[in-house]
Amino acid sequence: MDYYLIIDILGVIAFSISGVLSSMKKKMDPFGILIIAFVTSVGGGTLRDILIGFPVAWMRNLTYVHVILATTVFAIIFRKKLIFFRRSLFLFDTVGIGLYTIIGVEKGLAADFPPIICIAIGTMTACFGGVIRDILCNEIPLLFRTKEIYATACILGGITYFILLKLQLSSEVVFTLSGAVVIIVRSLAVYFDLRLPSVYFHSEEK
Amino acid sequence: MDYYLIIDILGVIAFSISGVLSSMKKKMDPFGILIIAFVTSVGGGTLRDILIGFPVAWMRNLTYVHVILATTVFAIIFRKKLIFFRRSLFLFDTVGIGLYTIIGVEKGLAADFPPIICIAIGTMTACFGGVIRDILCNEIPLLFRTKEIYATACILGGITYFILLKLQLSSEVVFTLSGAVVIIVRSLAVYFDLRLPSVYFHSEEK
Amino acid sequence: MDYYLIIDILGVIAFSISGVLSSMKKKMDPFGILIIAFVTSVGGGTLRDILIGFPVAWMRNLTYVHVILATTVFAIIFRKKLIFFRRSLFLFDTVGIGLYTIIGVEKGLAADFPPIICIAIGTMTACFGGVIRDILCNEIPLLFRTKEIYATACILGGITYFILLKLQLSSEVVFTLSGAVVIIVRSLAVYFDLRLPSVYFHSEEK
Repeated sequence: MDYYLIIDILGVIAFSISGVLSSMKKKMDPFGILIIAFVTSVGGGTLRDILIGFPVAWMRNLTYVHVILATTVFAIIFRKKLIFFRRSLFLFDTVGIGLYTIIGVEKGLAADFPPIICIAIGTMTACFGGVIRDILCNEIPLLFRTKEIYATACILGGITYFILLKLQLSSEVVFTLSGAVVIIVRSLAVYFDLRLPSVYFHSEEK
Repeated sequence: MDYYLIIDILGVIAFSISGVLSSMKKKMDPFGILIIAFVTSVGGGTLRDILIGFPVAWMRNLTYVHVILATTVFAIIFRKKLIFFRRSLFLFDTVGIGLYTIIGVEKGLAADFPPIICIAIGTMTACFGGVIRDILCNEIPLLFRTKEIYATACILGGITYFILLKLQLSSEVVFTLSGAVVIIVRSLAVYFDLRLPSVYFHSEEK
Repeated sequence: MDYYLIIDILGVIAFSISGVLSSMKKKMDPFGILIIAFVTSVGGGTLRDILIGFPVAWMRNLTYVHVILATTVFAIIFRKKLIFFRRSLFLFDTVGIGLYTIIGVEKGLAADFPPIICIAIGTMTACFGGVIRDILCNEIPLLFRTKEIYATACILGGITYFILLKLQLSSEVVFTLSGAVVIIVRSLAVYFDLRLPSVYFHSEEK
């Protein structure tokens, strides 16, 4: 439980910073930045909890709200230091999706859903916050920029989770390794500019 | 129950193909296509179940997931055949909204909502998946392109449903006829380029 | 309870008109206008009820639907009179967010959430309908146009609510005064063109 919360908080921090960086690029005011940070952090988990039928996590545990507030204030104050990480917005985003994917998978398992649904829940948990962030910042969602390996990384991490689970490893090892798969796949894809082949119609129609 | 599921599955297939066709136009990768197909198929029903307070259908019944996966793989492999249907994207979409409208109306009735709310639920079930599809593909929702008879067809089908229900016809007849109304109204509107009159301000302001 | 419903209905009327005005600018057909009016009015409250886990208010109380229908028909018929209010779209919007913020705060309290969560619920109740309206009308959400004092007004109204509550004033006084704070802050901000300072990176990067 405690271990669970700590990991969750790390994801919240990672996504809050990613939200702050996105919204500062749009020259938003402090409250706008806070809202974007908030939505980016808890959007995916909120969708997950609503779909599963769980009470929404951040509404009953003020830890989330305090962490988002503190992270946002911290990120705004130290924005000139953060600028060195600006090109690395993807780093925070990547750590975030790694953590959130596996948290989502585990919440799906806790609600007794079959593996394929758990992987879908994990992928949504990871990707939905960022999709909302991009829509609210009026950018095309990073998730859907063609051929990026993004949701794919989450799906592969989810599959890894269930393979490792079959091998009866300890839950911490399963969590860490499958989360690492998401982060490594996404990072390698960005670093080596790997892309999935696109599928489209070979037609001369407009 | 079985009859219900079969109709539901037909709608899922129709909307999955419509999602695959939309996303292939955007040259998405296979996983992106799968996600768009998935969201297009189950988005409307998910909204419906959350609003009604039902458990979300596709999360507890893997049939949906398998059908979407199979349809997507099939549609990607046979995309060169599907190209002949490309201009007919509206066909799949139209069959989909016909089926989903009436499924939505019936689920509303099952939850004991008044007719007007059932019609609203049916229209949302039918239209919401396509709205999400269009937003994620970064196009203006087909639903809101001015003066198209789209949601209007769903509303008319829903009204037909309750008129036929008053006539005490068998539930299959009511379902089939009112679903057909949606499909026919939408098809005729596209074929004859019928449009509703728009309402706007007669003003020279920008 | 009755008092509650009356206030709620006033908010529904205000937001319906704001939705009708927005959609008429886009030359939508009558059904499109109705849908936008509907979503603008109940979108925020629907999100609130789903997040809290309450049954969705408008689905069980036809008063909302009737009010939205009547307001929409009225607004369409008298659109040439409403034109004088066109530049005052913000007025309806402002009254709406004032009412909805405090309704949201009170529903959060009724569900026993801590103050900070209640303020977040109130702000979402107020802002979400308008965000959906703007997205469906294909405009950048008013909420996120940089530096506008919009959500900020809701947050200040929410904070006022809890300060007044501490002072043990009657619930009507608390409701009215804190709602007025939202409306006054927003109006003054628009009138005097007050804006929050934006926070951004001082960098020459693109």
